Amino acid sequence: MAVETVYRSSRDPERLFMDKAEADRHDKMLELAERLSEVLSRAVPSLNETQAEEAGIFMARHRDLFAKAFRNNPDALSELDEQ
Amino acid sequence: MAVETVYRSSRDPERLFMDKAEADRHDKMLELAERLSEVLSRAVPSLNETQAEEAGIFMARHRDLFAKAFRNNPDALSELDEQ
Repeated sequence: MAVETVYRSSRDPERLFMDKAEADRHDKMLELAERLSEVLSRAVPSLNETQAEEAGIFMARHRDLFAKAFRNNPDALSELDEQ
Repeated sequence: MAVETVYRSSRDPERLFMDKAEADRHDKMLELAERLSEVLSRAVPSLNETQAEEAGIFMARHRDLFAKAFRNNPDALSELDEQ
């Protein structure tokens, strides 16, 4: 037996990481997902909570592609079709 | 009477612009909105067509803020609360 250091995001305490950088990436992804879900819920009031959450998580997981799409290249999103 | 040049996006033929650059911006916004609606519909199958469209248009109208949010600054979306 030995003591181990593990890391987690306070936004998702169940998920533990051995690697701090990975925990940090997960936390940043969840932060973005939350903000996206909030603004989408306000912009499209008919969305239920689950839909807003799913949309936020999905976009946050693919943040690099969406960053490209919003900057100047909507076609960047085609990569999602191939996954 | 005189002949005038007006411009429109083939994605939205009803909306006419006197300024070509403005028509071009409108077309680009709609292109991004369409792509966003498509990927969201696939990612969140419970969305109906109107919801996906509204979400796509909303994000495309605010593309600069979303570009910042996806790049590295989720707080950029706070500006939407002030509008």
